Amino acid sequence: MRQINETFLKAARGEKTDYTPAWYMRQAGRSQPEYRKLKEKYSLFEITHQPELCAYVTKLPVDQYNVDAAILYKDIMSPLPAIGVDVDIKSGIGPVIDNPIRSVEDVEKLGQIDPESDVPYVLETIKILTKEQLDVPLIGFAGAPFTLASYMIEGGPSKNYNKTKAFMYAEPKAWWALMDKLTEMTLTYVRAQVKAGARAIQIFDSWVGALNVADYRTFIKPVMERIFSELREENVPLIMFGVGASHLAKEWHDLPIDVVGLDWRLSIAEARAMGLTKTVQGNLDPALLLAPWEVIEERARAILDQGLAQPGHIFNLGHGVFPEVKPETLKRLTSFVHEYSAEKLK
Amino acid sequence: MRQINETFLKAARGEKTDYTPAWYMRQAGRSQPEYRKLKEKYSLFEITHQPELCAYVTKLPVDQYNVDAAILYKDIMSPLPAIGVDVDIKSGIGPVIDNPIRSVEDVEKLGQIDPESDVPYVLETIKILTKEQLDVPLIGFAGAPFTLASYMIEGGPSKNYNKTKAFMYAEPKAWWALMDKLTEMTLTYVRAQVKAGARAIQIFDSWVGALNVADYRTFIKPVMERIFSELREENVPLIMFGVGASHLAKEWHDLPIDVVGLDWRLSIAEARAMGLTKTVQGNLDPALLLAPWEVIEERARAILDQGLAQPGHIFNLGHGVFPEVKPETLKRLTSFVHEYSAEKLK
Repeated sequence: MRQINETFLKAARGEKTDYTPAWYMRQAGRSQPEYRKLKEKYSLFEITHQPELCAYVTKLPVDQYNVDAAILYKDIMSPLPAIGVDVDIKSGIGPVIDNPIRSVEDVEKLGQIDPESDVPYVLETIKILTKEQLDVPLIGFAGAPFTLASYMIEGGPSKNYNKTKAFMYAEPKAWWALMDKLTEMTLTYVRAQVKAGARAIQIFDSWVGALNVADYRTFIKPVMERIFSELREENVPLIMFGVGASHLAKEWHDLPIDVVGLDWRLSIAEARAMGLTKTVQGNLDPALLLAPWEVIEERARAILDQGLAQPGHIFNLGHGVFPEVKPETLKRLTSFVHEYSAEKLK
Repeated sequence: MRQINETFLKAARGEKTDYTPAWYMRQAGRSQPEYRKLKEKYSLFEITHQPELCAYVTKLPVDQYNVDAAILYKDIMSPLPAIGVDVDIKSGIGPVIDNPIRSVEDVEKLGQIDPESDVPYVLETIKILTKEQLDVPLIGFAGAPFTLASYMIEGGPSKNYNKTKAFMYAEPKAWWALMDKLTEMTLTYVRAQVKAGARAIQIFDSWVGALNVADYRTFIKPVMERIFSELREENVPLIMFGVGASHLAKEWHDLPIDVVGLDWRLSIAEARAMGLTKTVQGNLDPALLLAPWEVIEERARAILDQGLAQPGHIFNLGHGVFPEVKPETLKRLTSFVHEYSAEKLK
């Protein structure tokens, strides 16, 4: 195994580090001119299915921005076709599904994933990166059952998740069957990523913030408890993330995970005051990257100061990098995070 | 002036009531078959510009659901054309603006509203309703500057409010000029509604939850403080509302208002524990209205129990009624809220 900088892993486990590690959700992709150039020649399908190309895209921001972790360049929907869901990523819309789930029968038709035969290119990409290329840890990931189910039930991106919630309330048998299928899929998919070389796992429950706490406890928390309890055996840091989910932060903290992801709505100081003692990841508003540098630096400093109050902070954005963000800004931000925190930790 | 049931107003002021009053955001409109029938004959423009039609639509849910307040059937965008913003409500999309704000010059071009000449039909509708028709209070309303500005800067509905935030960070002079224009418009428009007969005012800052607390304090709170301080003189209850804004609830509570609107993410018990002593309005997840009745009743009961712990709860949804909701459901819900709370308050 290659010698890697483990600062990110140490922070994830709540250990002391020499500086605050940083990475950015969606650091690879649309905001990078090299990626946009690649897209002129190759389709998204080709990029994600050709391990060398996918490894190149995954590693690019690590080299350019000097971040402390890489994250596999992949969509959360990517394991779904293997279980029988026809996903089409439509430009300007997002993932669209032609055969949405409407009944328990639809759920029963779903199969299971065999990563070695269904997504060999994912495992190959991870192997290339971790065995030959990266000097920082690679984060593997998967979408969480609620977020995946929301696409599968709505048929695409949604604003209110009406159909998903109505299904959950009115069809409990089908809901639990669906959760079981997605739990199995997630566990199998994530375990294969760790086996291939991923050193940490982030679970994206991007849209679960649409649920109230009572519904989260009833319909989702048991699912997440099972997933994380089983993933504990993989012995890698486990990270939970979602947007607009400040009201669920305490529920997440209860889960057997290492890192609670915070978007920009709940500050680290507030999270600590609420009793969140675990490592936190975040939480610069991604829109701030469109502000003048002075504004970015002021906000990053405030976040770092809060994060430095105890070990266990991974600097990140509260959501993915927008396409309009300039690469120079991310590079400068990483330098600032590293230098400012190293100075404070001296 | 007509004799009206003031239960809603009493609850808004934090006084004891015989039962918990209820009304539903978007109670008038798309979810009602009578409204859909009307739309076959009249355009949205005709309905909102003909006082008798608009009064009919506004009053319909009051008669059908027995709610304790009416709210003017109108869009938050309706005063904007008067100040020079071309708003087009596009079906399936929402409000679209062809001349988005890009600079301080664009802001300077905006005019001011004269309600008597610009929106006489709004005032006439209020007069018809309050002087001749309603036996419950009529709530007047306006969109808040952030939410209106988000449409004006983005050019339509947005997911991330990137352009709005970037404008706010990078063009402070233009931002404050825009806030001043919208504050003046809001004050003038709302005062005219009260003069015409509105007995309470709800300010919809629907999308302000996209901001982090630091930005809210810097860019929005002073604006809202001015608006509510000046509206205090109107001597009607003032209600603040937004979606996904649990992290701003404490900031709202600081404002000189009477009622803090809660969507479904923060429970009333949690809000009380945070120190929100004012009247709260909410907070049933509107998606729950698509659930079987037993589920709705269970959740409504939990909300009422929390609300009954001290005077000052107005039952409502956490956001507007979805078009798919059956009128019978809303009627049954109002009966349940009234009967259950009356029994508990005996």
